Amino acid sequence: MRFPAGQAHQDAVAQEEPLELRLPTPDGPLPLGVLMRTPGHDRELLLGWLVAEGLLPDEFALEADPDSPNLWHLRTPDPAALALRARLTVSSSACGVCGTGSIEALLGRAPAPGWTAGPLSAARLVTLPERLRAAQPGFARTGGLHGAGLFTPGGTLRAAFEDVGRHNAVDKVVGWAQERGLLPLTDHVLVVSSRAGFEIVQKAVAAGLGVVVAVGAATTLAVDTAAAFGVTLCGFAREGRLTVYAGAERVRP
Amino acid sequence: MRFPAGQAHQDAVAQEEPLELRLPTPDGPLPLGVLMRTPGHDRELLLGWLVAEGLLPDEFALEADPDSPNLWHLRTPDPAALALRARLTVSSSACGVCGTGSIEALLGRAPAPGWTAGPLSAARLVTLPERLRAAQPGFARTGGLHGAGLFTPGGTLRAAFEDVGRHNAVDKVVGWAQERGLLPLTDHVLVVSSRAGFEIVQKAVAAGLGVVVAVGAATTLAVDTAAAFGVTLCGFAREGRLTVYAGAERVRP
Repeated sequence: MRFPAGQAHQDAVAQEEPLELRLPTPDGPLPLGVLMRTPGHDRELLLGWLVAEGLLPDEFALEADPDSPNLWHLRTPDPAALALRARLTVSSSACGVCGTGSIEALLGRAPAPGWTAGPLSAARLVTLPERLRAAQPGFARTGGLHGAGLFTPGGTLRAAFEDVGRHNAVDKVVGWAQERGLLPLTDHVLVVSSRAGFEIVQKAVAAGLGVVVAVGAATTLAVDTAAAFGVTLCGFAREGRLTVYAGAERVRP
Repeated sequence: MRFPAGQAHQDAVAQEEPLELRLPTPDGPLPLGVLMRTPGHDRELLLGWLVAEGLLPDEFALEADPDSPNLWHLRTPDPAALALRARLTVSSSACGVCGTGSIEALLGRAPAPGWTAGPLSAARLVTLPERLRAAQPGFARTGGLHGAGLFTPGGTLRAAFEDVGRHNAVDKVVGWAQERGLLPLTDHVLVVSSRAGFEIVQKAVAAGLGVVVAVGAATTLAVDTAAAFGVTLCGFAREGRLTVYAGAERVRP
């Protein structure tokens, strides 16, 4: 039902379904995670999520379940080691919260974000969100999908994905790059249609991204994390404006 | 750094810090959860989160750690039973994903959302988000905080909370109500400044809320869940418009 009747409203509803990833072990399957996501590019989503969690094994097969569209299996020669790592990840996240050094503990590991290109023009950076939006058919249709896009320093859009979850959209971008052997993502700019919280920066660090541009606000922990790991973090990139929260040396007016 | 220099920008950055809840057991503390949240109203946040997860014991003491501002302890006479329930919650979420009936399995339990008041006027409902916004000082300052508010059928705002996480803002509202013995929230309207995904509706169901109004879009799973549990779900409540996705019998033009 719509109110007022007869007025134009957005028509489609953004799809959201749970996706489960299981690790087969000799003792039975271990659930690695359940993600609420917009179906489509599930493989990229899972790969990117595994990269961000530090759980992607060197040798693996990631397989869709033949019977259940929302279930995938991650096969690896040493599932016990991965199961242990998955448990340690959860427990070290929890343990690092209260003391000092929570950022380091939460991230667990720290690949240096890569940037060999020169400083980026702010005037160009502010145009990237609009170009990402143009590559987001789902948002135009539903108004309910977040987007994430991967740009070169020269401003070329290499990949763009959408999802009801802003973290998922980033995972899909990183998973897309992982599939193509592009990790770490040295000299790439990640653009998100959403705000930039800690987890967006965490995912950028895990993928080796050196520059993140968000349409919305950044949070304190996102800024601290970006500063600690040498990521350039820009927010409020809209209407021709931009705020650089960390790593300003990579941005020139 | 800001671009262009000299223009007005939003000044403050929304605060985000991890909050850990531990369950002391004879075998040592068990981490129940880590929430990335905006500090403030941590007690309400944790109470509301426990309600949503179905983990709030009948008898308990929820205590802030005297030494760590981001650590709380949940003491209860039978921690083993709660520890088991916490594990079952995770495992049943995972198990329910792939087959039919995933909504029921994901929710685990289903208190009937309460509504004894008559139908609500759509013309009044569309005004609620603006009134919530007026009660959101943090958003005005940072542009990065989500809000959630609790309204009576007559349109009185009873409580409003903000957080970098939209789910957290809802948890704070529900925790505030739990502290005051107001659960289940029969005849109350939950208004969120964000989109309405599955988890927002899940939290509404757990708190016994019968009507949810979102400023943003709803997702398919949110709509299905609302329909399955008799929750009235409205979205895109802005600029004098409103879309009713489920439970239209509680809304009159």
